[in-house]
Amino acid sequence: MKDVADHMVLRGAPVRDRILSDVRAYVGDHPAIGTLVSIAIGDIPEVAVYIRNQKRAAEAAGIPFDEQIWPADTTPEEAKARIQAMNDDPSVLGIILQRPIPAHINVRSLQSAIHPLKDVEGMNPASIGNIVYNDVALAPCTASAAVELIRATGLTMEGLEVVMIGHSEIVGKPAAMMLMAEGATVTVCHHMTRSVAMHSRRADVVVVAVGKAHLVGADMIKPGAAVIDIGINQIDVDGETRIVGDVATGPVSQVAGWVTPVPGGVGPVTVAILMRNATVAHQRQRAAGWI
Amino acid sequence: MKDVADHMVLRGAPVRDRILSDVRAYVGDHPAIGTLVSIAIGDIPEVAVYIRNQKRAAEAAGIPFDEQIWPADTTPEEAKARIQAMNDDPSVLGIILQRPIPAHINVRSLQSAIHPLKDVEGMNPASIGNIVYNDVALAPCTASAAVELIRATGLTMEGLEVVMIGHSEIVGKPAAMMLMAEGATVTVCHHMTRSVAMHSRRADVVVVAVGKAHLVGADMIKPGAAVIDIGINQIDVDGETRIVGDVATGPVSQVAGWVTPVPGGVGPVTVAILMRNATVAHQRQRAAGWI
Repeated sequence: MKDVADHMVLRGAPVRDRILSDVRAYVGDHPAIGTLVSIAIGDIPEVAVYIRNQKRAAEAAGIPFDEQIWPADTTPEEAKARIQAMNDDPSVLGIILQRPIPAHINVRSLQSAIHPLKDVEGMNPASIGNIVYNDVALAPCTASAAVELIRATGLTMEGLEVVMIGHSEIVGKPAAMMLMAEGATVTVCHHMTRSVAMHSRRADVVVVAVGKAHLVGADMIKPGAAVIDIGINQIDVDGETRIVGDVATGPVSQVAGWVTPVPGGVGPVTVAILMRNATVAHQRQRAAGWI
Repeated sequence: MKDVADHMVLRGAPVRDRILSDVRAYVGDHPAIGTLVSIAIGDIPEVAVYIRNQKRAAEAAGIPFDEQIWPADTTPEEAKARIQAMNDDPSVLGIILQRPIPAHINVRSLQSAIHPLKDVEGMNPASIGNIVYNDVALAPCTASAAVELIRATGLTMEGLEVVMIGHSEIVGKPAAMMLMAEGATVTVCHHMTRSVAMHSRRADVVVVAVGKAHLVGADMIKPGAAVIDIGINQIDVDGETRIVGDVATGPVSQVAGWVTPVPGGVGPVTVAILMRNATVAHQRQRAAGWI
């Protein structure tokens, strides 16, 4: 990254490494831990990089990883039946459903078929509902990663003014609730907000999960604030494809106290949280007498 | 209420009557609708008034209402087994668990025993999780009532700046998510917020659910704003016990565009929403082939 005030950049790698090291220790104590099953349906090129990163993190953590690719014409009934069988199979530790899935299958319905105790991605409505009840055991990984990175700044969570830009079900809303549970005052902005800048300019922490390259510029950030960038956007620069976040990292790094880079910020932490969720699932399955 | 600018008071009765009239019409079309079962455990005097109001609303709506009082020494296992039997009984339309319950029973655990399709109070983690997914079919009644009263002002929900004071699981958080789903920009404040007034003073709508008499004064409200008061507090005035909300209604009514009274604001609407939830539960049970 050119023109980036490098000492302001909050990288994901150290946080990822710390989490994976904890997971590895847990797996060392529980060597019979089951397998994480990754399900991709059809040949979806964009999921390959996610699966590769998850597989690599699972290897680093010592968790068996089973990469399954189901035919594109799998029926919703077949898919549910196979997931149901995995729910009942004690050797399956957790189930990851790679998105997108083919259009003839309702993704929410299929996700709901994954039992909450095996829902390592934290996508089941019951898992999300538990977050409202301050039980964040299996929270959506990206939302958890945002919280971990805020924690990594060393800022005190109680009373922290956080502005979340984006109100998606798997990032914005759960992250907002998790931050409230830790004592932050949270405002959730979105495409209908009259003035996002009015909110973001007074925030101690800005979390962005919209999916628009360079949406957040330096004029939207209070000096010294922390900026957590969850966006992943492909843009074309001089005929070359580049991955950038929702934040104009260079200019923002001149103003902010911390800014997470894309790539290399939230992404690595998200995959590590998936592995941590797997150990939580293991504990819960044991507590429930499943294994 | 003395010193209250009466034309600014947003009463619950008309909203309640409109909702109950819709429910009555639905019940007229579905005369075989099942019974709402109210469960109180032990002799808890403070639930009597809630049960009486629910019973009255059920009568007005034409929904059979069965008031059950279980012995105070009911074990958690017995309670769960009885609720389980009601889940399986097609003549039971919905189950209301009156709180508080005796301390030897975990309230969240018992609430989770109520099947989401019979959870007319919208308290099951799965019901709450569905709100995050913008599926507000069975939302917690008080949170829904707050949304209905905001709607009754005629203010446009999209872009509305709402400040929620209080981040409880059954009011603040679900109401915040329901308002986000309708396009509002929502800030959730609570006891750790550095300056609640800083937020509330810029809000188009302030919703208060804390449980502190007169917490919100006129100095915290923007002229013309709507103030929705969810608090119910007993205070002593000259040796007399009075019920008041979290808002200093008199002074606030001099500044606000709308303020809901306590009693007579959110309360009546909440009970009406419970009846509407019962009709939603009926539709869902039919769709699921249960009845």
